[in-house]
Amino acid sequence: MKVVKYPSKEEWSTILKRPTQTVNDIETTVNQIFDDIQRNGDTAVLKYTSLFDGVNLTEIEVSEEEIELASTVISEDLKEAIQLAKSNIERFHSAQKTATVYQETMPGVECWQEKRAIEKIGLYIPGGTAPLFSTVLMLTVPAQIVGCKEIVLCTPPNSEGKVANEILYTAKLCGVTKICKVGGIQAIAGLTFGTDSIPSVYKIFGPGNQFVTVAKQLATKYGVAIDMPAGPSELLVVADDSAVPSYVASDLLSQAEHGTDSQVILVSTSTKLVEAVSEEINNQLKELPRVEIASKAIENSRSILVKDNEEALELINEYGPEHFIICTKSDEFFVENIVNAGSVFIGNYTPESAGDYASGTNHTLPTNGFSKAYSGVNLDSYTKSITFQKISKQGIKNIGRSIELMAEAEGLQAHKNAVSLRLKDINN
Amino acid sequence: MKVVKYPSKEEWSTILKRPTQTVNDIETTVNQIFDDIQRNGDTAVLKYTSLFDGVNLTEIEVSEEEIELASTVISEDLKEAIQLAKSNIERFHSAQKTATVYQETMPGVECWQEKRAIEKIGLYIPGGTAPLFSTVLMLTVPAQIVGCKEIVLCTPPNSEGKVANEILYTAKLCGVTKICKVGGIQAIAGLTFGTDSIPSVYKIFGPGNQFVTVAKQLATKYGVAIDMPAGPSELLVVADDSAVPSYVASDLLSQAEHGTDSQVILVSTSTKLVEAVSEEINNQLKELPRVEIASKAIENSRSILVKDNEEALELINEYGPEHFIICTKSDEFFVENIVNAGSVFIGNYTPESAGDYASGTNHTLPTNGFSKAYSGVNLDSYTKSITFQKISKQGIKNIGRSIELMAEAEGLQAHKNAVSLRLKDINN
Repeated sequence: MKVVKYPSKEEWSTILKRPTQTVNDIETTVNQIFDDIQRNGDTAVLKYTSLFDGVNLTEIEVSEEEIELASTVISEDLKEAIQLAKSNIERFHSAQKTATVYQETMPGVECWQEKRAIEKIGLYIPGGTAPLFSTVLMLTVPAQIVGCKEIVLCTPPNSEGKVANEILYTAKLCGVTKICKVGGIQAIAGLTFGTDSIPSVYKIFGPGNQFVTVAKQLATKYGVAIDMPAGPSELLVVADDSAVPSYVASDLLSQAEHGTDSQVILVSTSTKLVEAVSEEINNQLKELPRVEIASKAIENSRSILVKDNEEALELINEYGPEHFIICTKSDEFFVENIVNAGSVFIGNYTPESAGDYASGTNHTLPTNGFSKAYSGVNLDSYTKSITFQKISKQGIKNIGRSIELMAEAEGLQAHKNAVSLRLKDINN
Repeated sequence: MKVVKYPSKEEWSTILKRPTQTVNDIETTVNQIFDDIQRNGDTAVLKYTSLFDGVNLTEIEVSEEEIELASTVISEDLKEAIQLAKSNIERFHSAQKTATVYQETMPGVECWQEKRAIEKIGLYIPGGTAPLFSTVLMLTVPAQIVGCKEIVLCTPPNSEGKVANEILYTAKLCGVTKICKVGGIQAIAGLTFGTDSIPSVYKIFGPGNQFVTVAKQLATKYGVAIDMPAGPSELLVVADDSAVPSYVASDLLSQAEHGTDSQVILVSTSTKLVEAVSEEINNQLKELPRVEIASKAIENSRSILVKDNEEALELINEYGPEHFIICTKSDEFFVENIVNAGSVFIGNYTPESAGDYASGTNHTLPTNGFSKAYSGVNLDSYTKSITFQKISKQGIKNIGRSIELMAEAEGLQAHKNAVSLRLKDINN
């Protein structure tokens, strides 16, 4: 980890720069695959699965037998762990339910707001080396709470045409209505247009590589909503001498092992802490099975020395980290004043992995500085709010004249008429 | 209005088809202008303003003098109307505030969620024939409530290089921090990249034509959030013999006058009502100053006869109207069961124009069926939720083993280590 000492504000943007993604190059490919799948449905899906995942499937949908079988293979220990995580996620997301907002804005003018579930959603779970069943938990539990009717999960098959048992087990446990063996661009295109095997949905959730990210953004052009644009995962830790260096190092490494493009940043006012963490990273790093990935990510990362907490805060808000760990004597200062962050972890006994798996918060969070405008996935991500209004005769008398004046000033006579007609009847 | 009698479900998608937009053709232009503004800033902005708005500006920002002057020109009547609308919008949007969600998910595992304001936002207000100061109200009032720090408003200048007084007055009244004379693609590009005159922002709100819509979608590629993709405005009315035909006609026309591509739909079980509304439309239409626009929109529109309320509901949920007026004996059936709609208007005395201006609900709503996944603009549109977690020694003992098991099953050893290290210390 490079140490940057007391950088000036002018240097911040360079120091805080994320590993770049080259989205434009990918777009042509994504567009072509979308076109093909819109036109040729399952045939095209199977073709790309063969091409990219190296497996020739006959069925895209996972069968009931495969799902049942998965359950018999998972250890009881892991089942219990998943159950504990599930119930914590349920508890925290259920607490996010909101009541109807009702307000009589003027006598006779009743307005209210209600949230209703998005009926059809698609979840994307990446494949690759690790079966990310924790993401299945994070994306399905809130959907179940609000009552989404169709929950379609897409994940790429492995070279034997299978989906990891952990994913199948968790999906079944959490009420997924259909599991499809399809990954990458072709999965997102399938969820966008619908094919014989893949239902079209109204909103797509879930992480993925650059191809999936660009595909999700293209899906929005076809009227499908997405949770958020995703980028490589990142963690920023602010720590002082009250932090335990080995814990800080372990948190930074747990982020770094995600991928070579992951970014971890340590911000501190203490040279001593920065040095101690650096030493701990070197010690712990060599023990890791994913040492190559983590080493590469650590190379891209920075320890930044700042002069005081105020400067630290300003720098952190400028960066807008996805994960933000606070291990300082003045925890409260940061908790109260952080504006741009996805999820915040406070104190020596709150590792990021707690939030990744089991504390109850969601781990699908805004990366790439998107925390400046985006929330992480939460209960509201699965609903949309509808407003209602009911106006009585007295109510329209109270606001009618204002509407007429404003409509007239905007040159919209028919808008005015709609009120004038009613007022005339009431006054007669 | 074409009358469609008792269509089969297979015909619905054809009947409910919206006037199409050809987004792809526009993209090249939008990309070029974005590139130019990213490279050349204000110089490019001024060039496009000259090209598209036909005016050569020297200053992009509206001056304090222009703003002050506007206030002296607006009539007291209109000021009062704006004030009434503003206070209703404030009341309803303030009622949408949510408290911190706090939940101890397990002993020693505290999780909470807080909403914090998006610091920098941009508002786009279209130009054209009518000065849409009502949209200024709708987009600024919630921003003020949550405390957005920078509120930048962009709107195209007229051929004399001016912005309508009503827009300037309302913007000043509602705490806009900067008003820029810039419209179209160049405004969205300016808010995305920032120029000397136009600050870059984190989220862009507001309606616009196809160019603005495509530009907003392009902005998301550069990490800027948007309220929602916008399309032509639309209204669906469900009415039976308890509805007043002249009121229904006036509501349909108030939507139709927005633009030739506006769409209005009447759904009813009553042939009598459909005929009476049709007659009323013909009567009222000829009196309208915007008769040409409204006639064209009415031509694209449909009255649909259905066999019962259940079928009506299903069809309406399939369409997902932006505005939905309910004028039937069984109002409650529709209120309870509508899933896909932006804003709902109930009863004979609740014209759509009430919500457009002054009832208190927001008029920035999902069009084009986006109500299946998107909310209209509401208080939460101006905040993002951050999750926090604080785990005690006891807490990590309670969930540590589950995290270890899950991390191991996902092949993420460093995630496991972060917990194991802490558990080891605690148990020693």
